[in-house]
Amino acid sequence: MSGPGEGRSGRRPGSADTRGRVLAAARASFGERGFDGATVRDVAARAGVDPALVHHYFGSKQQLFVAAMEFPPLVQAVIPELLAGPREGLGERIVLFIVGLWDGPGVRPLLTGLLRSATTDPVAAAMLRGLLAEGPFLALATAIDRPDADLRALLVGSQLIGLAMARYVMAVEPIASATPDDLARAVGPTIQRYLAGDLEAEPPQDGRGGTP
Amino acid sequence: MSGPGEGRSGRRPGSADTRGRVLAAARASFGERGFDGATVRDVAARAGVDPALVHHYFGSKQQLFVAAMEFPPLVQAVIPELLAGPREGLGERIVLFIVGLWDGPGVRPLLTGLLRSATTDPVAAAMLRGLLAEGPFLALATAIDRPDADLRALLVGSQLIGLAMARYVMAVEPIASATPDDLARAVGPTIQRYLAGDLEAEPPQDGRGGTP
Repeated sequence: MSGPGEGRSGRRPGSADTRGRVLAAARASFGERGFDGATVRDVAARAGVDPALVHHYFGSKQQLFVAAMEFPPLVQAVIPELLAGPREGLGERIVLFIVGLWDGPGVRPLLTGLLRSATTDPVAAAMLRGLLAEGPFLALATAIDRPDADLRALLVGSQLIGLAMARYVMAVEPIASATPDDLARAVGPTIQRYLAGDLEAEPPQDGRGGTP
Repeated sequence: MSGPGEGRSGRRPGSADTRGRVLAAARASFGERGFDGATVRDVAARAGVDPALVHHYFGSKQQLFVAAMEFPPLVQAVIPELLAGPREGLGERIVLFIVGLWDGPGVRPLLTGLLRSATTDPVAAAMLRGLLAEGPFLALATAIDRPDADLRALLVGSQLIGLAMARYVMAVEPIASATPDDLARAVGPTIQRYLAGDLEAEPPQDGRGGTP
C-alpha cells in the first residue's frame, strides 16, 4: 500500500512539524529535569524556537507537560502488535510493554510527575482521566469486543496506575525491583481478565467451586 | 472467655486514652476540612486538650495526619471476620469492606489527602509504603499461607490504590459511581488471585489453552 518514501507521509512541514519538535523537546526536558526543573525556555531552546511560540502552541508549562505526557503515537502504534499474538497472552504482553516503556530512560520522572500533578492539578487530573477513559486501554477493550468496554478499560488503568504508584512513586519492595517478566506473570492475568474475562460472575458460595 | 464489662478492657485510662481521643479528633477534623484546612489547634479543641499536647504526642500536622490515617484498629479488627467466610469469596469481601470504608462519611478527603501527600511528602510516602508493605494486606496474605506473602500483599495494595485513584482522585466514570457490589464483582477476583492464586504460572503459548 505504501511506496518508497511514504513512511513519513504522516508528517507535514510547517506548524505540525514544529509542534512535534516542541513536544519531543518537552519530553526530553521533563525527563531530564523533572516537572519542577524543566522550563519553557529550556524546551524552546532544545526545539530551536522562540519561547513565545511554545506558549502560543501549548499555553502554560503545566499544559505543555500534559501534552508531552500523552505518548499517543508510541502507545497507539503498538496496539495492533499487542493484539496480534495469542489472545490469552494479551494481558502479559500489555504489562511487559507498559513496564518496559515506564522503565525506559527519562520516563520515570515524567510518570511520577504526572501522578503527582494528577492528585493536585485539575488540568493534569483531566489529562489522566482522559488517558484512562478514552486512551489506549479503551482501544484495546473495544478491539476485544466484549460488553462494558469502558469499565474494562478503566479497570486496566486502575491496576496499572496502582502498579506505577507502588513501583515508582512509593518504590516499595519487592515490586520496585521486580523484573518486567515477574510483573507480567503476576499482573498480566489481571489485565487479561479485565479485558476479556467475565466481570459479572458471582463466585461459588458453597466452598466447592464449579457448577452443579 | 470474657466476662461482663471486659469488652473495653483494651482501653486504659490516662495517656493512651488521650492519644486515642486526639486521633479520633484528628480524623474528624481532617475528614471535614481536608489536610490543608485542618489545624492542630482545631484537633486539640475537639479532643479537649492543649495544642502543645498534640505536638508532644504526634509532632507536626503532617505527622498527626499520618498517624490518624492508619486506621489500624478498624482494619486489623475486621481481618478475622474477612477470613472466616468461604475462602473463595475472600477477594470480594475485602473489596466490599474497603470500598464501604472509603465511601463512609468523612473518609474520602482523608483518602485523597493521603494519596496526594504520598506523591509529594516523604513522611506520607513512608506511611503509605508501610501500610502497603506491612499493614493489613500482609496480615491477610500471611494468614492465607501461600509463598511470597510480601509480594501478594503489595499486589493487593497496588490494585486497591489504583482503584482509589480512579474512584476518588480522578473520579472517572463508570468506576466513580459504581456500587460497592459492582466493584467487588469486578475487582474481587483480582484480589482473590493475588492472595491465594498462582502468581508464577506461564500462560499457554499455543493459543489452545489448558494442559495437554
